[in-house]
Amino acid sequence: MAIKAKKINKILDEAIPLRHPLKINEAMRYSLLAGGKRVRPILCIASCELVGGDESLAMPVACAIEMIHTASLIHDDLPCMDNDDLRRGKPTNHKVFGESTAVLAGDALLSLAFEYIACNANNVSPDHLVRVFAELSSAIGSKGLVAGQIMDIVSEGKVVSLKELEYIHVHKTAKLLEACVVCGVIIGGGDDNDIEKVRIYARCIGLLFQVVDDILDVTKSSMELGKTAGKDLVSNKATYPKVMGIDEAKNFAYHLMNKAVQQLACFDTAKAAPLYHLAYYIANRQN
Amino acid sequence: MAIKAKKINKILDEAIPLRHPLKINEAMRYSLLAGGKRVRPILCIASCELVGGDESLAMPVACAIEMIHTASLIHDDLPCMDNDDLRRGKPTNHKVFGESTAVLAGDALLSLAFEYIACNANNVSPDHLVRVFAELSSAIGSKGLVAGQIMDIVSEGKVVSLKELEYIHVHKTAKLLEACVVCGVIIGGGDDNDIEKVRIYARCIGLLFQVVDDILDVTKSSMELGKTAGKDLVSNKATYPKVMGIDEAKNFAYHLMNKAVQQLACFDTAKAAPLYHLAYYIANRQN
Repeated sequence: MAIKAKKINKILDEAIPLRHPLKINEAMRYSLLAGGKRVRPILCIASCELVGGDESLAMPVACAIEMIHTASLIHDDLPCMDNDDLRRGKPTNHKVFGESTAVLAGDALLSLAFEYIACNANNVSPDHLVRVFAELSSAIGSKGLVAGQIMDIVSEGKVVSLKELEYIHVHKTAKLLEACVVCGVIIGGGDDNDIEKVRIYARCIGLLFQVVDDILDVTKSSMELGKTAGKDLVSNKATYPKVMGIDEAKNFAYHLMNKAVQQLACFDTAKAAPLYHLAYYIANRQN
Repeated sequence: MAIKAKKINKILDEAIPLRHPLKINEAMRYSLLAGGKRVRPILCIASCELVGGDESLAMPVACAIEMIHTASLIHDDLPCMDNDDLRRGKPTNHKVFGESTAVLAGDALLSLAFEYIACNANNVSPDHLVRVFAELSSAIGSKGLVAGQIMDIVSEGKVVSLKELEYIHVHKTAKLLEACVVCGVIIGGGDDNDIEKVRIYARCIGLLFQVVDDILDVTKSSMELGKTAGKDLVSNKATYPKVMGIDEAKNFAYHLMNKAVQQLACFDTAKAAPLYHLAYYIANRQN
């Protein structure tokens, strides 16, 4: 995973040259190259390889997904949204570049993602690419990330049911992970049955990711997390530990991990290894 | 033009149903259906028809471009950007729905544009669609709209040269118009020579649009414009009348209109009629 992440980082670095207007490109680079775990691009590549596709085929889409993810983080951190000061252990984009540049950097990363695919995925057939565009754009908008974020904001300070909580996280986290694996499988030449399996896998690890995130927020310090800890508690935000208690939340995480890996049973074990690993990694991560 | 605009409005209305989460879909609909002139979609369709393509082929891309345009207006109006209270004669998106929803509505409209094309332009060949995606996304990001907006913000209150002023407007206005005509010609089956001609046409009417906008800002009232008049003067923003004087700005507008229509000489006159009309319309519009 570390080797893949390094390769992805190099490509992301080259994707945004420091050209005029300098400020916007600096702001885009600042957040994109701030050292995330690159879970999403790795997931996309692993899904392509799962069905026999080559890493190089999926790489442009994998990198584009990291751009989309970063764009959503920049906008989520804005003062009018979650008003976060720290992200990946560094000051958030608007703290460094100002609010207007942060809004524009998010917009520019979002459109760069589509441009990057359209201009660099030359070895993927155009009809596969059109399906990739449909999948990715649907994961971002009012049926995806944006739906999750708006419900998150609307529910702040209110008592939130488990069903509402899950709606938020399915949309804020799982939808884009789903797009990662579906796009990977499309590019790799998988069939509808393969797509269905990885969709369920992604939904499970998406929720898993969020449950673990919520658990870490109440059990770890800001230093250990590289972002403000205990923030969910202070802001009165709905979290799994708050709604179901910390022990039940840990049980739920275990259940999701198991359901995720069950989806992989029908694939070649060696090819599915990175996806097994990723589920275990997400379940056991410490920051 | 009124008939085309009506057809476009109907399709835009149907493109965003009022489903859960209601607030984001209401916010998206509010700005998208606020009654713009639909210059961009009409331009896209006219360019498709110019090279012999059918209106129905270009319609999904035409409507997607209006979504992109609206997204950029919502973000441009934000308090941290131009801080505008009025747009198309109505309170701006963030004034009605709040700042966080306005940021998200812009994001959602941007991604919906790509989703709408990927899911609805079924009669356009996938390789044409990939070129359309490349053209559109490039017009939005750090080489397009975003570049123009950031330079606009950076230059506020400073003395701005004519060259800098043109950079801003080429990127804020002309790039998306360029994408309109280029996408229309790609979809309609035009060749590289056709694309080059309509590119120059769009650059000219893009600048023309802005020069006329600047002239109207100093010569008309808020009531006549449907947005805050005299704002450029108050905010110390660079405008053509300010840099070159009102008479010279009017001459420049005339020159741009002529250069635009010259590009149309090699096309069938009847098919080019809407593009001639649009150039004259932009040059002579009163709000």
